[in-house]
Amino acid sequence: MQYLEDFAVGQAFTTGRRRVDAAEIVEFAAKYDPQPFHLDAEAAKTSLFGGLAASGWLSAAIMMRLVVDSDFRPAGGIVGGGGELAWLKPVRPGDELRVASEITELRGSRSRQAQGLVTVRLTMFNQNGEAVQTFTPTLLVNRRPD
Amino acid sequence: MQYLEDFAVGQAFTTGRRRVDAAEIVEFAAKYDPQPFHLDAEAAKTSLFGGLAASGWLSAAIMMRLVVDSDFRPAGGIVGGGGELAWLKPVRPGDELRVASEITELRGSRSRQAQGLVTVRLTMFNQNGEAVQTFTPTLLVNRRPD
Repeated sequence: MQYLEDFAVGQAFTTGRRRVDAAEIVEFAAKYDPQPFHLDAEAAKTSLFGGLAASGWLSAAIMMRLVVDSDFRPAGGIVGGGGELAWLKPVRPGDELRVASEITELRGSRSRQAQGLVTVRLTMFNQNGEAVQTFTPTLLVNRRPD
Repeated sequence: MQYLEDFAVGQAFTTGRRRVDAAEIVEFAAKYDPQPFHLDAEAAKTSLFGGLAASGWLSAAIMMRLVVDSDFRPAGGIVGGGGELAWLKPVRPGDELRVASEITELRGSRSRQAQGLVTVRLTMFNQNGEAVQTFTPTLLVNRRPD
């Protein structure tokens, strides 16, 4: 468990890898993003994606799971207020994803004395080393108790 | 189906409503965000959230589903490059969510002659009229064919 005092700007973390397959892409899309290019490989051929692609929200969810399972373990959990999200390349069936992250900013919280704010830049890569997604959340992290 | 020419800055859209229950919150978290405050009502009591709360990525996925099922139907689908995401309040079991959106910017695409870029500000509200989440994506929208 890491407290605010254990983090520093420039500190980097990596995650394990996770493979995404067509079944997970289609199952997620059927529930939350039922558009043809996320549901059906044939229909996806004539779309902007040119083939089946994961919903960006599935990519985001996989990024979260990779980070939760990593060695980045702030005390109190990974809790954020949001951030800038960018989808750079489609995520395809068979892609093997991993996340690299770096702390870009640390500061105290004005409203919460026992916590601070940690900004992290997360980049998710596929098996070809291509960045497919970035997210730059600001997280609320506990200070070490006295 | 709506083409770039059918949209205008200031145009507003609304969605239907969707109720989120504890089972969906826990099922999503078990797959993508397995932290105690998203998985277990008892453990969540001592967390920052003070009770079971949906993963922000479930909130985002529900927002997407509400928009896909709405009358906002750009030709070629709802395809975005990302945007600023903010979680403003926890989403709780039993919450009934809806989305209000407004087009804030329209412009041509330099790299794609047949398309333009539409920026939309999406706000998701709960049953008490509280804004729980905002997202401001820029979407790629087809021009009307000649």
